[in-house]
Amino acid sequence: MKDEFDFIDSITPNHSYQSTLIKGIGDDAALIRPDKSQNDILCVDTMVESIHFDRKTMKPFHIGYKALAENISDIAAMGGTPIFYLVSIAIPSNWTEDELQGIYKGMEKLAQKYQMDLIGGDTVSTKGPLVISVTVHGRVRSDQQLLRENAAPGDVVFVTGPLGLSAAGLHLLFEKEQLDPEIDKCLLKAHQLPVPQVEAGLLLSESGFKIALNDISDGIASEANEIAAASNVHITLDYAELPKHPSLERFSDQQVEEWILYGGEDFQLVGTISESNWLPLKKTFDDQQHDLYKIGTVKAGQSGVSLLKNGECLSLHKKGYNHFKEK
Amino acid sequence: MKDEFDFIDSITPNHSYQSTLIKGIGDDAALIRPDKSQNDILCVDTMVESIHFDRKTMKPFHIGYKALAENISDIAAMGGTPIFYLVSIAIPSNWTEDELQGIYKGMEKLAQKYQMDLIGGDTVSTKGPLVISVTVHGRVRSDQQLLRENAAPGDVVFVTGPLGLSAAGLHLLFEKEQLDPEIDKCLLKAHQLPVPQVEAGLLLSESGFKIALNDISDGIASEANEIAAASNVHITLDYAELPKHPSLERFSDQQVEEWILYGGEDFQLVGTISESNWLPLKKTFDDQQHDLYKIGTVKAGQSGVSLLKNGECLSLHKKGYNHFKEK
Repeated sequence: MKDEFDFIDSITPNHSYQSTLIKGIGDDAALIRPDKSQNDILCVDTMVESIHFDRKTMKPFHIGYKALAENISDIAAMGGTPIFYLVSIAIPSNWTEDELQGIYKGMEKLAQKYQMDLIGGDTVSTKGPLVISVTVHGRVRSDQQLLRENAAPGDVVFVTGPLGLSAAGLHLLFEKEQLDPEIDKCLLKAHQLPVPQVEAGLLLSESGFKIALNDISDGIASEANEIAAASNVHITLDYAELPKHPSLERFSDQQVEEWILYGGEDFQLVGTISESNWLPLKKTFDDQQHDLYKIGTVKAGQSGVSLLKNGECLSLHKKGYNHFKEK
Repeated sequence: MKDEFDFIDSITPNHSYQSTLIKGIGDDAALIRPDKSQNDILCVDTMVESIHFDRKTMKPFHIGYKALAENISDIAAMGGTPIFYLVSIAIPSNWTEDELQGIYKGMEKLAQKYQMDLIGGDTVSTKGPLVISVTVHGRVRSDQQLLRENAAPGDVVFVTGPLGLSAAGLHLLFEKEQLDPEIDKCLLKAHQLPVPQVEAGLLLSESGFKIALNDISDGIASEANEIAAASNVHITLDYAELPKHPSLERFSDQQVEEWILYGGEDFQLVGTISESNWLPLKKTFDDQQHDLYKIGTVKAGQSGVSLLKNGECLSLHKKGYNHFKEK
């Protein structure tokens, strides 16, 4: 492999999208001219080889795409627009330069969609697995804040699309089951090239309504619990109302339930809005041909989440991937 | 160890310094209200166990302190003020919670000095060495930009302090030589608790002069070459003018030269300013009791760096730590 300076040269964009960018890669730090009526958003997410992804199931392009997607999803969950990103990568010696380029190409593909600029990063070596850490800087209008703490008793709970697809896709990749090209393509895509819900997030923030919002990276059980805890409310989800994607029909009810509730990485948005604002919001989404599903209710009471299923009411706990317990 | 949510709770600050912070840790991303007359600066730096640091020579507190320091140094090199930071950490199972807390305490110590808020991050597990990636968000007045590309023929080259101390400290820690508490303390401190030159960076940016600036993370040979390349000029450094710290006197000339030119991690600032502005700048630094040393000159010609030493003129190439060649 060439040296790191050559590598950095090879991944440095030769153009920029944002007029607010004064200086990107090529100095000690990036320099941005802020917009006056907007708030900044910053977030960082890290993916570790053999923990968050496997080279058997994800191509380098997928790894880069997903690393950026999960950060963009965090910006979407604030109702914001992603603008810039920085990439820090610790590289083991068993990755080829072509593979590393593939990671950056995957990010670039998604960055192009949102006109995001790569403005910095760090490239280092490691004797362990590959670690990629992406920081995203976004903006949101200063009067629009979709915080987890915004849920209130009487609110409707909504989700922007079907869940469990990414987990089903991972299952297929690991099980190497006979794939049905027609119906499995969307499951594989959901796992390898997930779509963050930026447009939905913008529709929500531009609605002007008070909305609590979270992106579903760890499974809806976990994310709904985070809204409940931040807002100090009790959320009840109705399993029958959760949208089911037709491509999940071939799997057992138990598998599908596990994936829908705990699968994560679908990057749909889950949120709450007052009952009176629900229909106007739904109409806005319908007009823009965006999905929006009513899936539950918010009540006062001890913070937590319940699941209604087959006439039973079950307590729904966080049960996402726990990095510390995994050891 | 407790789970990651408990861990994140334990490292979440219970106060904030910045009035511009709307939402820090506890939502999908941080939310910041920008100041109108300032530009944003963003940078990220990553440290990998056994590559950038060794648990034999660095305590967890030092690791955290240094991980933040090297990012703050990048902000200083833009003439900016560090404001917020985000921490992404991939943790192997052989680190205790106390040690991890130590890392965050080291960062907090330095953050306190600059009134910086920890506003987000990601905490994941890894089967490899510990990887810590810090993102810093800073601000600089929009009319003050100290870019590497600002050097011009006729400029004076300056440095804010003596070099090679961090490398000498690392040498002592590895060699386990008989330590002289009186003179070695400052070498160990230079390696374990390096001081970023934020105040000097602000003096430079507030001077209003056109200045090229770089922080010395990879050794002055590398950093001067970066200025020369970005500005398309030739820089000549005079070895006799480079400030020598008295604590280096006990080492051989060859060792000292190696450390001063290529050691890196001293986080002093190297820059250039026009000959006519040099004395006013030097006076400003003297008045504030800050060190500033004239160490070379800038000429037109092929981009590169020369070193004058003992009447000879040598070509000085980048020879910092190359992460790709290290494999």
